[in-house]
Amino acid sequence: MSSNGTAPAYRRLSVDERRTQLLVHALGLFAHRPPDEVSLDDVAASAGVSRPLVYRYFPGGKQQLYEVALRSAADQLKQCFAEPCTGPLTTRLSRALDRYLLFVDEHDAGFKALLQGGSVVETSRTNAIVDEVRRHAAEEIYAHLNPAYGPSGPGPRLRMAVRTWIAAVEAASLIWLDEGKQPALEELRDRLVQQFVAVLVTTAAGDPDVARLTRKALHVEKRDGPVGQLARSVLPVVEGAAHLL
Amino acid sequence: MSSNGTAPAYRRLSVDERRTQLLVHALGLFAHRPPDEVSLDDVAASAGVSRPLVYRYFPGGKQQLYEVALRSAADQLKQCFAEPCTGPLTTRLSRALDRYLLFVDEHDAGFKALLQGGSVVETSRTNAIVDEVRRHAAEEIYAHLNPAYGPSGPGPRLRMAVRTWIAAVEAASLIWLDEGKQPALEELRDRLVQQFVAVLVTTAAGDPDVARLTRKALHVEKRDGPVGQLARSVLPVVEGAAHLL
Repeated sequence: MSSNGTAPAYRRLSVDERRTQLLVHALGLFAHRPPDEVSLDDVAASAGVSRPLVYRYFPGGKQQLYEVALRSAADQLKQCFAEPCTGPLTTRLSRALDRYLLFVDEHDAGFKALLQGGSVVETSRTNAIVDEVRRHAAEEIYAHLNPAYGPSGPGPRLRMAVRTWIAAVEAASLIWLDEGKQPALEELRDRLVQQFVAVLVTTAAGDPDVARLTRKALHVEKRDGPVGQLARSVLPVVEGAAHLL
Repeated sequence: MSSNGTAPAYRRLSVDERRTQLLVHALGLFAHRPPDEVSLDDVAASAGVSRPLVYRYFPGGKQQLYEVALRSAADQLKQCFAEPCTGPLTTRLSRALDRYLLFVDEHDAGFKALLQGGSVVETSRTNAIVDEVRRHAAEEIYAHLNPAYGPSGPGPRLRMAVRTWIAAVEAASLIWLDEGKQPALEELRDRLVQQFVAVLVTTAAGDPDVARLTRKALHVEKRDGPVGQLARSVLPVVEGAAHLL
């Protein structure tokens, strides 16, 4: 690309605009390819600028661009979890999971590479960003379960249950990508919601505080919602197990 | 260390013995420290040999030593999952989890560093070893659920459920290490077993094949076992939810 041909375009954008433009192109590339398969030349070509220009805005090169793109994607992902604290818990969880799974769908290869690790751009800083998103997701769930929980959240048993469910959601997302996005997003979402209810009820079985808020949450669930469907389908599975009671 | 002082020891060990000795020392170091905090000098000092001698047996240096140690630890971990296919399913699962959690306990810092990623020794090869252990654990569980499953295992729904439960176990192990190994290993094991039962029953609710084998598995569970305890504790939590049936 000749400098004559691109120079006018350089002047048209402010520093912030140019930075944002490069970031948007980087995000687009990192979303659909493993980071090791994205070069600074790719970002420059995608944005229609020269490689030195990319370096002028991101002197740390690909590593810096990846971290800034990840920071931006993480903030976007955290927005997915924002949901008003009204209505049945599973309705709120379903809406948040819909947005999360759409994010996974739209960032497939990048999401997979990030969570599977082993890339040269993976550092303690990128791991910290991923952990921050997980922590944010857990805190949102604590607040939905009981708005009265303080910043420290619930007791260790419920905290472990929520955090392990989040790990299960991540694993399910990766399996979903590996299996060509089967089943449909809505079915995967319903399974994850039902698993959450199963984990919550199991945790409630050993913790009076969790039992109290689980009873309260079940009370406002709808018969035709995911918990009602689960309850009716579980009955024939467990009806032969009366000897356990 | 002078070559005079160590030369006789070099001659006493065969090539295989020396290699094994170095590996044992490397395993001991990698178990209790993140790999980035273990140097080849540490391995040499621990084994009482010179650094060049370590290089003679492991020309690839720390990277090779880490991969060989990880391979050995992975094989050891896979042994933890071997369990006869008799008796209640949760008894078998409890025994395998006891051995797994003991392994986590004994390899705490190394286990944490490996699963949290971000180390320079982490590569596609080390990731493949970790994935191989996960796959092996899943295959053991499929075989225990139904010995008639072929090499391809059960349908996609149960496969996803088992694999996400394994991810939840890994996450719980990391949280357990972060929280100073609280609760006691036996309590954590019981929670994980109960979560497995909850996931299995939830999966059975949407899959006739899984429903059939879950009913069969519940039939041989004992009243004083983990499923009996779970069933009796869950009843008061869900009894107010009759409107969902």
